Amino acid sequence: MNYNCGKIAIIGGGSWATAIAKIVVSHAHHIGWYMRRDDRIEDFKRLGHNPAYLTSVHFNTDEIFFSSDINTITGAYDTLVFVTPSPYFKSHLRKLKTRLRDKFIITAIKGIVPDENLVCSEYFHQVFDVPYENLAVIGGPSHAEEVAMDRLSYLTIGCADIQKAESFAEFIASDVIKTKTSSDVIGIEYSSVLKNVYAIASGICSGLKYGDNFQAVLIANAVQEMSRFLTAVHPIERSAYDSVYLGDLLVTSYSNFSRNRTFGTMIGKGYSVKSAQIEMEMIAEGYFGTKCMKEINRHMHVNMPILDAVYNILYEHISPQIEIKLLTDSFR
Amino acid sequence: MNYNCGKIAIIGGGSWATAIAKIVVSHAHHIGWYMRRDDRIEDFKRLGHNPAYLTSVHFNTDEIFFSSDINTITGAYDTLVFVTPSPYFKSHLRKLKTRLRDKFIITAIKGIVPDENLVCSEYFHQVFDVPYENLAVIGGPSHAEEVAMDRLSYLTIGCADIQKAESFAEFIASDVIKTKTSSDVIGIEYSSVLKNVYAIASGICSGLKYGDNFQAVLIANAVQEMSRFLTAVHPIERSAYDSVYLGDLLVTSYSNFSRNRTFGTMIGKGYSVKSAQIEMEMIAEGYFGTKCMKEINRHMHVNMPILDAVYNILYEHISPQIEIKLLTDSFR
Repeated sequence: MNYNCGKIAIIGGGSWATAIAKIVVSHAHHIGWYMRRDDRIEDFKRLGHNPAYLTSVHFNTDEIFFSSDINTITGAYDTLVFVTPSPYFKSHLRKLKTRLRDKFIITAIKGIVPDENLVCSEYFHQVFDVPYENLAVIGGPSHAEEVAMDRLSYLTIGCADIQKAESFAEFIASDVIKTKTSSDVIGIEYSSVLKNVYAIASGICSGLKYGDNFQAVLIANAVQEMSRFLTAVHPIERSAYDSVYLGDLLVTSYSNFSRNRTFGTMIGKGYSVKSAQIEMEMIAEGYFGTKCMKEINRHMHVNMPILDAVYNILYEHISPQIEIKLLTDSFR
Repeated sequence: MNYNCGKIAIIGGGSWATAIAKIVVSHAHHIGWYMRRDDRIEDFKRLGHNPAYLTSVHFNTDEIFFSSDINTITGAYDTLVFVTPSPYFKSHLRKLKTRLRDKFIITAIKGIVPDENLVCSEYFHQVFDVPYENLAVIGGPSHAEEVAMDRLSYLTIGCADIQKAESFAEFIASDVIKTKTSSDVIGIEYSSVLKNVYAIASGICSGLKYGDNFQAVLIANAVQEMSRFLTAVHPIERSAYDSVYLGDLLVTSYSNFSRNRTFGTMIGKGYSVKSAQIEMEMIAEGYFGTKCMKEINRHMHVNMPILDAVYNILYEHISPQIEIKLLTDSFR
């Protein structure tokens, strides 16, 4: 029997939130949508599209119930898709008065909960008592920009309750969105954080004028590093070749849409972290992800030379030239 | 004790042959070099560079003994590096009168021996009685163009006699060429053929306007397909994540230097095979590789949907739209 996702709401107003809203509303014909800023909501209603992200995607705003009060949304909807940037995740949740444990919570946040050093599903479980069978994740590979353009994309829905994963996967599938399922929620969450770290590394090397030959060696080593970490943190049987892991790494590391890669390229070209961030105007999630992963791995002791190099460059101000040179010696 | 490679000669005059000659002569200070065409040799001597490929790489021609007589070269040199396009491989060898079985034979041919459907090391072993311990392979990921520019590249030397692999690997290593060794000669040879097939597939999808999201899914599925085939054809313990397999696939599938990808892109855009070949002026090895691999797999029965699709497009004239659409349904 199919699980009924009930009424679905989106929490967050960025580009990935907008892409997921586009997908969901095309099937559900009604969604709730929490955005922090009232002026954005007003502009959205007036324009018929998100004023700040994926502006080419037009919505029938009659199908959307907007609110800047998170409790209005979380109280009235059954399935909550959290798609906020990870640095703001906790500040949104602090306002929550709704009980979450009976909701179906889907996270599409490619980051670690700050200070806690937990992936989002662990945080919902530990802090909000949400049972694991009510916690799901949406994995890539999928740039929001291509979903907006209706270019064929594959999404993986992860949930400990595979029935629920399958129901939601079937619900959002279409000619341009192919879906599959997995029970590896934590592995998908960690890999979506790590791939941003590796995309920054990829950008740094490109900024330093390393070529395609080296880039390929870097990515081959990155998927091995990712696989080692996933095995250590959540030792289940998985193949890191699957597109939700390797594919997501590839799309983020090789694509020009990737802001993490762009951020890395600027660092490799000699920009400071601060000036790269100012220039880009968008948060490169991998910047925060690098610090969180480094801290998590202090207890795990997995051999992660790429993560270490990116951390040293971004947080210890060691020159990219030196760090990447050292990295080249560690590769096989 | 290190194996002594003795006097080294290059057989072949294309871009990869030129890149390998550059690497070897920088250490050996003398090489033999067989090229088919006397006029090319004359131009090379006059200009100080290969007149047709990697023209930016200057050679001290006093360090090179050129000959258009293959027996002059194979007779006088101890280590022979074969780097001819696979379609011409047999025609070169037909002229051979030299006994090869005491030579150290290194192949850097990314193709299958036509009609025989054997990789080059098998062919040398079966037809020329060369023992496997005298047969080696040079694997990537490495575009000749980037080796020419002194961009950091990693090469893997495969040989059943790992001492010999290590000796040659050490001999050619430098600041810009990092080397490692492997005993998986046949796996490296097959993967270097298959990656060209997948690069064509990647180009076809790009020509059909599939985006980065799908490209990532394609490549993740390609490395799984490659891994399945290698396990079936030569079941030893290997990780297809290693840069000689996955990295080589990545550099060929994602790089603009890849002529196989370019060829595929033209096919995806609607060029016929013939007009794409005329336009490119260079042979896309993967065109022949596709046919050979398809024939080899007729006996192996490995599940290879990407190979099948490329074969159907190139040889059965089935529309790329239809074949790729079918492929998208088979992916995970």
